[in-house]
Amino acid sequence: MSMNSFGHLFRVTTWGESHGPALGCVVDGCPPGIALTEASIQPWLDARRPGQSRYTTQRQEADQVEILSGTFDGRTTGAPISLLIRNTDQRSRDYSEIAPKFRPGHADITYHLKYGLRDYRGGGRSSARETAARVAAGGVARAALAALAPAVRIRGALVQMGERRIDRAAWNWDEIGNNPFWCPDRAAAADWASYLDGLRKSGNSIGAVIELVAEGVPAGLGAPIYGKLDSDIAGLMMTINAVKGVEIGAGFEAAALTGSANADEIFMGNDGQPRFSSNHAGGILGGISSGQDIVVRFAVKPTSSILSPRKTITVSGEETDIITRGRHDPCVGIRAVPVGEAMLACCLLDHLLLHRGQIGDAGGHIGKPRA
Amino acid sequence: MSMNSFGHLFRVTTWGESHGPALGCVVDGCPPGIALTEASIQPWLDARRPGQSRYTTQRQEADQVEILSGTFDGRTTGAPISLLIRNTDQRSRDYSEIAPKFRPGHADITYHLKYGLRDYRGGGRSSARETAARVAAGGVARAALAALAPAVRIRGALVQMGERRIDRAAWNWDEIGNNPFWCPDRAAAADWASYLDGLRKSGNSIGAVIELVAEGVPAGLGAPIYGKLDSDIAGLMMTINAVKGVEIGAGFEAAALTGSANADEIFMGNDGQPRFSSNHAGGILGGISSGQDIVVRFAVKPTSSILSPRKTITVSGEETDIITRGRHDPCVGIRAVPVGEAMLACCLLDHLLLHRGQIGDAGGHIGKPRA
Amino acid sequence: MSMNSFGHLFRVTTWGESHGPALGCVVDGCPPGIALTEASIQPWLDARRPGQSRYTTQRQEADQVEILSGTFDGRTTGAPISLLIRNTDQRSRDYSEIAPKFRPGHADITYHLKYGLRDYRGGGRSSARETAARVAAGGVARAALAALAPAVRIRGALVQMGERRIDRAAWNWDEIGNNPFWCPDRAAAADWASYLDGLRKSGNSIGAVIELVAEGVPAGLGAPIYGKLDSDIAGLMMTINAVKGVEIGAGFEAAALTGSANADEIFMGNDGQPRFSSNHAGGILGGISSGQDIVVRFAVKPTSSILSPRKTITVSGEETDIITRGRHDPCVGIRAVPVGEAMLACCLLDHLLLHRGQIGDAGGHIGKPRA
Amino acid sequence: MSMNSFGHLFRVTTWGESHGPALGCVVDGCPPGIALTEASIQPWLDARRPGQSRYTTQRQEADQVEILSGTFDGRTTGAPISLLIRNTDQRSRDYSEIAPKFRPGHADITYHLKYGLRDYRGGGRSSARETAARVAAGGVARAALAALAPAVRIRGALVQMGERRIDRAAWNWDEIGNNPFWCPDRAAAADWASYLDGLRKSGNSIGAVIELVAEGVPAGLGAPIYGKLDSDIAGLMMTINAVKGVEIGAGFEAAALTGSANADEIFMGNDGQPRFSSNHAGGILGGISSGQDIVVRFAVKPTSSILSPRKTITVSGEETDIITRGRHDPCVGIRAVPVGEAMLACCLLDHLLLHRGQIGDAGGHIGKPRA
Repeated sequence: MSMNSFGHLFRVTTWGESHGPALGCVVDGCPPGIALTEASIQPWLDARRPGQSRYTTQRQEADQVEILSGTFDGRTTGAPISLLIRNTDQRSRDYSEIAPKFRPGHADITYHLKYGLRDYRGGGRSSARETAARVAAGGVARAALAALAPAVRIRGALVQMGERRIDRAAWNWDEIGNNPFWCPDRAAAADWASYLDGLRKSGNSIGAVIELVAEGVPAGLGAPIYGKLDSDIAGLMMTINAVKGVEIGAGFEAAALTGSANADEIFMGNDGQPRFSSNHAGGILGGISSGQDIVVRFAVKPTSSILSPRKTITVSGEETDIITRGRHDPCVGIRAVPVGEAMLACCLLDHLLLHRGQIGDAGGHIGKPRA
Repeated sequence: MSMNSFGHLFRVTTWGESHGPALGCVVDGCPPGIALTEASIQPWLDARRPGQSRYTTQRQEADQVEILSGTFDGRTTGAPISLLIRNTDQRSRDYSEIAPKFRPGHADITYHLKYGLRDYRGGGRSSARETAARVAAGGVARAALAALAPAVRIRGALVQMGERRIDRAAWNWDEIGNNPFWCPDRAAAADWASYLDGLRKSGNSIGAVIELVAEGVPAGLGAPIYGKLDSDIAGLMMTINAVKGVEIGAGFEAAALTGSANADEIFMGNDGQPRFSSNHAGGILGGISSGQDIVVRFAVKPTSSILSPRKTITVSGEETDIITRGRHDPCVGIRAVPVGEAMLACCLLDHLLLHRGQIGDAGGHIGKPRA
Repeated sequence: MSMNSFGHLFRVTTWGESHGPALGCVVDGCPPGIALTEASIQPWLDARRPGQSRYTTQRQEADQVEILSGTFDGRTTGAPISLLIRNTDQRSRDYSEIAPKFRPGHADITYHLKYGLRDYRGGGRSSARETAARVAAGGVARAALAALAPAVRIRGALVQMGERRIDRAAWNWDEIGNNPFWCPDRAAAADWASYLDGLRKSGNSIGAVIELVAEGVPAGLGAPIYGKLDSDIAGLMMTINAVKGVEIGAGFEAAALTGSANADEIFMGNDGQPRFSSNHAGGILGGISSGQDIVVRFAVKPTSSILSPRKTITVSGEETDIITRGRHDPCVGIRAVPVGEAMLACCLLDHLLLHRGQIGDAGGHIGKPRA
Repeated sequence: MSMNSFGHLFRVTTWGESHGPALGCVVDGCPPGIALTEASIQPWLDARRPGQSRYTTQRQEADQVEILSGTFDGRTTGAPISLLIRNTDQRSRDYSEIAPKFRPGHADITYHLKYGLRDYRGGGRSSARETAARVAAGGVARAALAALAPAVRIRGALVQMGERRIDRAAWNWDEIGNNPFWCPDRAAAADWASYLDGLRKSGNSIGAVIELVAEGVPAGLGAPIYGKLDSDIAGLMMTINAVKGVEIGAGFEAAALTGSANADEIFMGNDGQPRFSSNHAGGILGGISSGQDIVVRFAVKPTSSILSPRKTITVSGEETDIITRGRHDPCVGIRAVPVGEAMLACCLLDHLLLHRGQIGDAGGHIGKPRA
């Protein structure tokens, strides 16, 4: 049990609070000989960095990553990779409102109930700032995947903000970079901009749904029963701040389908690999990847730090009101997109190594006997 | 990494195939001195047992559990508890249809892709029969919870079959035992009966949504970041056969809520514990239990073993058709209810022990300094 | 933390008490496609079986192993392998002497101090009978090693009984099977026979030292720092009943050596692999195998169950005397030889899989660049 | 499997190379509310620090520890504690001798065989410099033990250098601080000083044996079978650089004892706790602490970096000679004393938390029924 670690063979341990001097992670189990420098990781952090539009927290962080160990001459050595990111904008502020009270919908109260004390500065460990370390680790995982399974491509998109869903027929990955929402639907992005402006001005916030797609994943990753690839994915997505639901492929819609409608029929592709008529499975059957795209969605609740006054209690048990001022995300789901991608990258690399450990090859045994 | 184990301090390892001689589990880490005999476990297995109505597989299994180790004079000793359940109805049958072909929507193909061979008899390890071992382990967890946290009560219900949802206003836990669906809404249960009869007769199947509620869970269970209680719950539910989605509290609906609507306001109860105006959080904030009811939902896809012919390929890579005859569940979600309960029981006990390990008491620090 | 499991990717969980109905283990993570039947495992259990000479406990156990899961058509499937061994000679006896008192030098008192109760029948879980499950698991590991690394050969010998050491110049592996002590020195074996007869008749017992040698182990197994191969070996040997010390290569004698005497000089072999002038390292440098023979020794204390009356206390805290009658081993170290071999086999296979997971090949990079 | 982590509930992950910018560790699972500042940790680092006498490497390192996370207002919060120590004396030097060749007896060759490349600057990850992170983690463990089990006292001593053993009758803990060897025997310390001067001047090195004693350890820590306290201790000591053997209590001498001589007889103390006539067990029976002093010894081989020319090969497979110049420890065992203490402190705290998790109290059930 490591509360601040995840992964099996590719294992990530993160540390750091919102308003401490720094945050970071230790990445253990990375294969040796992988090309890796700060420049391999920084672009992913830049993409996650807050304060790049008016739709995310105005906290300004350079989020410069330093590699403190684990590489030599620009390549991984197999030793643990320590990544450090300094906190530079822990704005000095007045905690007299937040220190003695619990924000409704926030982890304030449960940290206090569990530990009997909490670091209330900027949310301490519960701050979404911790996700910078995940994105940095994801950069290492992507570098290793690029070497070991170059066909793998992992991308995420915001597919729902509040009750507003994208038009899936209008999905265009190229649009992702053209708006501050990672939205693949140009019209939806425009609509969301005005919608979120209104919420932001009123001091309110809104939830969102993120969809991740991993293409080019080899068949055979994952394992039956408690080692299921989708179990690890679900557990990992649920570790991201504010996530309240996760689904694979058809997800909750599968509950409404008949067996004949849900089953993805199988054909042979020209490359000797199976092809499927549809992807209700989201690329995973029985916990093991099938070679189809892996499709994951997760729901992010609205930020609980809002300007509307809410009823709450104090740490000494008195009823009171609270307003949370500060630099909060009106839709924290936006910044969850690169975080979800990073977690999926780490998870897929981990299962690639696990598969290689038990099986010793790249799987894929159709039409030919195993040696 | 243990592919067939779950849990941290309370750790369960299951084994066994559908058509092998037996299946079972080893339960490690149970506290000592807990009253435990076969009679503590058997009722939970009886509730899960198939063949009790025409709506589940007609396979007949006594599912008699034997305790092979770990107890002495009717109490646990702290040693590993080995539970054995014999398979008695591995009906001899013709595998010439299923052995050389993959059922669409089934783990057949991914097991083959990963391992290069598979035990095709009754689905082998991928059969829902494995869940009997989970329910047995859940019986041990419930016995320990009864001693350590007697206020905890864990119940599950089927809240959706296909597109047919229960009327939540009609929720009555007492109805659960009055129908073969674990349905808390009497009218819905009657409707489902005729609906499922139709599906069954046409050789088709349907998905479902299960809701679990755990009352009386102490505040403080779980941990931040990667040790989150909801992460473990999501990962564990996703290990259950055919599950494609998991959500906590408001779940995916939280994506459509504003921050002001989603935040559960906090008050003081007469017992000196916090009370909440609502439970969008599903009893978990920041990965730690708040003392509210823990509410979990998961979606189960329809069984892929159906009578309608589907396109597929053979193990040697030829395209063909398949019809899956046999004794399959028209709605495998029904039998997932006691399985989900068992997994939640194991998870809550595990986190109770973890909390006790790190913190040493039962948490709950409002209005009083930690000693 | 699994108290009754060991291993990382190849993971073994054992269960069962001395006088329960059965004991066994679950072996998880075995590669698929390995030829495995009961006949692959039984010979190793037969070698460990007590009651085969007058120098081990006279308890008669058939130790017939049953494979309950994880194989299909005589090959492993990648699913967990459940092995069951029934206890047949749990002789009904009078526990009035042993139940209320603690045997000095035995785990009776610490089990009681920890758990507040104990299964006193035959020592319960602390009995050396648990090692049958280890030997069975070792049989699976050997079958997998035979397929994956056929050059590996693991053998053990008793090299010291009491103060009587073998003459290393007389070491002959062929002698191991010619005496009941696994002694590689014919003369020492004859001497030990009369020595142990005397001890046995006087109701006393004696300690021993076992040496294990693994030949043909590929270079590169293990990992730096906390993943060291020798750390795992030391930890695993120390889990065997009555073991009080473990050493690798020169072991404690290395403390008396100078650096110039201890360093094994390196040359090139004709096969392009490094050769060493000596093996003070015991085949492991920096936690990683070098390709030399792996040499492990461990010390086993004398059985604490003896006929001489000893001072002790009762479970209610009164001082008293105790004599332990029963069928005890005069030199429990003898039966530790096949147990040590089994643990080493499991450990080496586990590290082979771990290496393959992180590195993806068989290591061995001298004189050629890594691809 | 985490190659650079150890511990179960109290879990330490270290990172960093000898000549990188820094090294450090992340300490996860520490109980909350423990008083902890840099001043709690620094004294232990100061004690380990090299360059304080002519008998250790002349590398000068301030070894100033920084706490980057996990504390608030001088107390632990339950969040991961990140500790950073900068490397200040990575003396710029010529690696043309060491880079292309393997030092005999050193991990150079096995790192290269495993990973295909290595960070040769100062030994990279295999340098004893990594142990600074262990000592820092040990400081955290000691702070937690001081709060949770204040009777625990952990001390270490050098009891053998080369063939020169201390006189146990002259053991005086107060002498430890009066010589640069952690030697409890004043006369031996004087003898060792001149002995080591000779070795140092001749460019040679020597092995040593360290003994650790933990007093005041509560009975009941540890677990049977694979969770044994002595198994964890042995595995952890074997992770320390250059350690080749570990023993508990009588250790290898137990092999020479009869059962009647080895068994520690049991009496009742005035405090209602058991007392023992001797401590051959080293405070651990059946893997569980008995309440007696825990006694551990481990053997450290001589440094392989010596001035005498030795035969070796190059990374391209050519035979050659090597002389290792540099600032090496003539007896690296000296600096292993505080490292062993730190590992034991971490291990005991971890088992205290594990015990509390499964059992929920402090154990110790003699003469009274468990509640």
